[in-house]
Amino acid sequence: MAPNSARLLPMTAVDLNSDLGEGFGVWTLGDDDALLDIVSSANIACGFHAGDPSVLRKVTELAVERGVAIGAQVGYRDLSGFGRRFIDVVPEELTNDVIYQIAALDGFARIAGSRVQYVKPHGALYNAIVTHTEQAAAVVEGVLRYDRSMPVLGLPGSEWLRQAESAGLATVHEAFVDRAYTAEGTLVSRRVTGAVLHDADEVVARALRMVREGSVVAVDGRTVGLRPRSLCVHGDTPGAVEIASRIRSGLVEAGVDIRAFVDLSGSHPHG
Amino acid sequence: MAPNSARLLPMTAVDLNSDLGEGFGVWTLGDDDALLDIVSSANIACGFHAGDPSVLRKVTELAVERGVAIGAQVGYRDLSGFGRRFIDVVPEELTNDVIYQIAALDGFARIAGSRVQYVKPHGALYNAIVTHTEQAAAVVEGVLRYDRSMPVLGLPGSEWLRQAESAGLATVHEAFVDRAYTAEGTLVSRRVTGAVLHDADEVVARALRMVREGSVVAVDGRTVGLRPRSLCVHGDTPGAVEIASRIRSGLVEAGVDIRAFVDLSGSHPHG
Amino acid sequence: MAPNSARLLPMTAVDLNSDLGEGFGVWTLGDDDALLDIVSSANIACGFHAGDPSVLRKVTELAVERGVAIGAQVGYRDLSGFGRRFIDVVPEELTNDVIYQIAALDGFARIAGSRVQYVKPHGALYNAIVTHTEQAAAVVEGVLRYDRSMPVLGLPGSEWLRQAESAGLATVHEAFVDRAYTAEGTLVSRRVTGAVLHDADEVVARALRMVREGSVVAVDGRTVGLRPRSLCVHGDTPGAVEIASRIRSGLVEAGVDIRAFVDLSGSHPHG
Amino acid sequence: MAPNSARLLPMTAVDLNSDLGEGFGVWTLGDDDALLDIVSSANIACGFHAGDPSVLRKVTELAVERGVAIGAQVGYRDLSGFGRRFIDVVPEELTNDVIYQIAALDGFARIAGSRVQYVKPHGALYNAIVTHTEQAAAVVEGVLRYDRSMPVLGLPGSEWLRQAESAGLATVHEAFVDRAYTAEGTLVSRRVTGAVLHDADEVVARALRMVREGSVVAVDGRTVGLRPRSLCVHGDTPGAVEIASRIRSGLVEAGVDIRAFVDLSGSHPHG
Repeated sequence: MAPNSARLLPMTAVDLNSDLGEGFGVWTLGDDDALLDIVSSANIACGFHAGDPSVLRKVTELAVERGVAIGAQVGYRDLSGFGRRFIDVVPEELTNDVIYQIAALDGFARIAGSRVQYVKPHGALYNAIVTHTEQAAAVVEGVLRYDRSMPVLGLPGSEWLRQAESAGLATVHEAFVDRAYTAEGTLVSRRVTGAVLHDADEVVARALRMVREGSVVAVDGRTVGLRPRSLCVHGDTPGAVEIASRIRSGLVEAGVDIRAFVDLSGSHPHG
Repeated sequence: MAPNSARLLPMTAVDLNSDLGEGFGVWTLGDDDALLDIVSSANIACGFHAGDPSVLRKVTELAVERGVAIGAQVGYRDLSGFGRRFIDVVPEELTNDVIYQIAALDGFARIAGSRVQYVKPHGALYNAIVTHTEQAAAVVEGVLRYDRSMPVLGLPGSEWLRQAESAGLATVHEAFVDRAYTAEGTLVSRRVTGAVLHDADEVVARALRMVREGSVVAVDGRTVGLRPRSLCVHGDTPGAVEIASRIRSGLVEAGVDIRAFVDLSGSHPHG
Repeated sequence: MAPNSARLLPMTAVDLNSDLGEGFGVWTLGDDDALLDIVSSANIACGFHAGDPSVLRKVTELAVERGVAIGAQVGYRDLSGFGRRFIDVVPEELTNDVIYQIAALDGFARIAGSRVQYVKPHGALYNAIVTHTEQAAAVVEGVLRYDRSMPVLGLPGSEWLRQAESAGLATVHEAFVDRAYTAEGTLVSRRVTGAVLHDADEVVARALRMVREGSVVAVDGRTVGLRPRSLCVHGDTPGAVEIASRIRSGLVEAGVDIRAFVDLSGSHPHG
Repeated sequence: MAPNSARLLPMTAVDLNSDLGEGFGVWTLGDDDALLDIVSSANIACGFHAGDPSVLRKVTELAVERGVAIGAQVGYRDLSGFGRRFIDVVPEELTNDVIYQIAALDGFARIAGSRVQYVKPHGALYNAIVTHTEQAAAVVEGVLRYDRSMPVLGLPGSEWLRQAESAGLATVHEAFVDRAYTAEGTLVSRRVTGAVLHDADEVVARALRMVREGSVVAVDGRTVGLRPRSLCVHGDTPGAVEIASRIRSGLVEAGVDIRAFVDLSGSHPHG
């Protein structure tokens, strides 16, 4: 990276986040060990849709050993659906479910010498609170009650981040390096062909562009501005881990620091 | 209570503890509201055998409002068995199950302005660790890891308290005012006729004797010494709440302070 | 009941159905024993939102002893929410969840000398499939696959009964004697004041009118036609059991037979 | 295989059984598809320790397509422990848990055009009822109640098979081709080094010897007689599937028919 180009870069560091701790009992999912060498922030399942206590213990300890930030991957109480099905939970109960999950994970984080450092809702809850006003408010309320200094991670433009910001929580924008975007900067639905990118080179190029140029090329060819402080990578298939690893190398080779957003200075108002 | 008898009393204050927060979802068990006016320490279920997050939220808030100490009623993961069936959990997993439960409840306790102040295992786990060396060690390890300043409540002579004490935890002895004792100071098995006392007057008299004279009359008529710092009362039937209320009045009228053991000075080495 | 009016009555027998078997483990809900003396059809929970195997065993045996028909009260897999929260289950999975529940209950029904004789979805699933096309189809598919001779019970005008009928299942209409109706014959939302009737005399009078005159007076005073072959009564509070008992007596005294709809001749095309 | 040796063979057909359907929701375990080409009997999990309804549906349909017999792999209600932890369930409840599981699986088996054809308890329950009199009786009672014509599969010499036989159930002996045996014909504890065999050639040789000579060489070198009608093979690791496949080929090449025991004539009194 030439010194003069550095001056123009809007960002020279970015966070990589991924879902971890998603096993349960005898069942495993994803390669937590490999991912912890790739990401800077681990969204760890808290037991409601995945993640039993022994999984939480192990993943939090490994995360702390490797300097990876710990986030609470809160979700609906739905082991059989892996939290991927919308549940019309009463907001007051959802708030309490969120508190319970953060607190349980925080116990293991503290034992490992750290803390839960942020919250990122999972699956159907993540999707619901992009627009579901009451549930978004319920999750915000849960975080506020537990620790109002805790930042939250989410989709730019979501009800979740809007309400969190109004409530005084620090909000962090994330982008998906393997997902197609619309010209409005939203994600193309997974049901549309081409919504998920599988070509490693293309994904790495997109990651670089997001970080260095602050933009992504939408499905219609237009360039959309976007300032993610964190990039979400996947690890629940062997191929995904390989791509995640390529993304990391690509960024590092381009001179981008991979650093937990909780350690990044607040140079980006919302990112 | 005559002044001169007061001088001889080994104890003028005692804790009353009971199980609370044992509902789950639509289902309720016991009268938490009534019990919180009777007891000084609430053993609150943590979600594994009973107690969903909204129950935990409500009971911890009420307990704090009324100045009742909060204890973690940790148990086996067994909703359908209410934690009343021994489960041969691997010790490492049991330790993590205990941490998870304490931490989850602690989240609600802190939100309510307090903390989990002690641990009392529930049901089959309580019974198992009277003698089960590995599981007793596993629960002790869980408490130690979570907070080594947290006292534990249990049966005098149990492996649980023995190991907790060896590990440096503060241990508190409890007695059961409605249970028959053997001459050795152990509980008569529930399977034996007469093991559980139902006469309110007799139970109140026993409570008073335990507190004031430090003894109980065993099934064979012998007097057994016993120095409980806490008396366990039950509340899972309407009649039980009435008896618990009678016990409290009886003690108070006799000049005994009902006070959470966590607030009692350490005048009794093990109690 | 005057002889000449009797000739005009469209119905001299009706089924009473209620939810039973809704306990789980140590927790109970409703008075199954009392209700089995009142109703002619028991909607028995199957384990997903309530009802553990020992509850199923006991209730099916009691139902058979007393000649009460056994229906499968299928619901979402949601113990903590008692099946009262909509879950956006994938239709194929919902079909399999329905089959699993019917089959499990059927095991106990057969042991008791009977069979599951009909299906009535519970709670949020009941409400969802009034309009949710895919989930209605999924439940219909589950019943068809399990036993296409099995009738289904539900709300007149619902997507559930419409699709069931199209698929060739026998459909049975039910009415709610303690709920206010709109002039269109739909239920007034529980959120509206006056939606649920608590006066026993009024409820009994409505039950009689539904059965004898085939109508109900809507909230705006208009008379709405309605031909339920089954009346749903509630039993999850002591007061509810008392009202249910009054409804039965009122009907019996008026000369109406209380008889399981599965035993009624098919004089009503949809009821 | 020489013609003259064939005349002496005590057995020219054997069943291969394996555990299938052990996924849950998003989580998978083992390669059901591959195993169904290897085994003649599939022990299918029923939902209490593994196996959600959609797993049951899929595996029963595949089993029927490929002519593999369906067995109910009943277990303790313990998803987080995969049924591998002893639970001290009250016998009456265990009976009902067994009925529930068999009935639920049977629903899917019947939809697929078959039936549950036998019962083989899983994990800790399998181990417990080798000696646990009450639990063995409870499982036997469950099978008897559900269908007294249903054979049961288990360990020769176990309390489970002894009681099942006394109760009039058909019992089938199984042997473990990858486990070391003592001179008494019991399994060497997994905690002992060498208890589990990993060498494919050795395992295949043992399988052949068990089938053709009716014996196994114990850890002390002595030959132990053993007449399994079914051999248990494992499939929960890729290597295990490979070994299972080798066992099948080895047997077939040696002229042994692999055939579900439910289809084998009853030439062996207990096997």
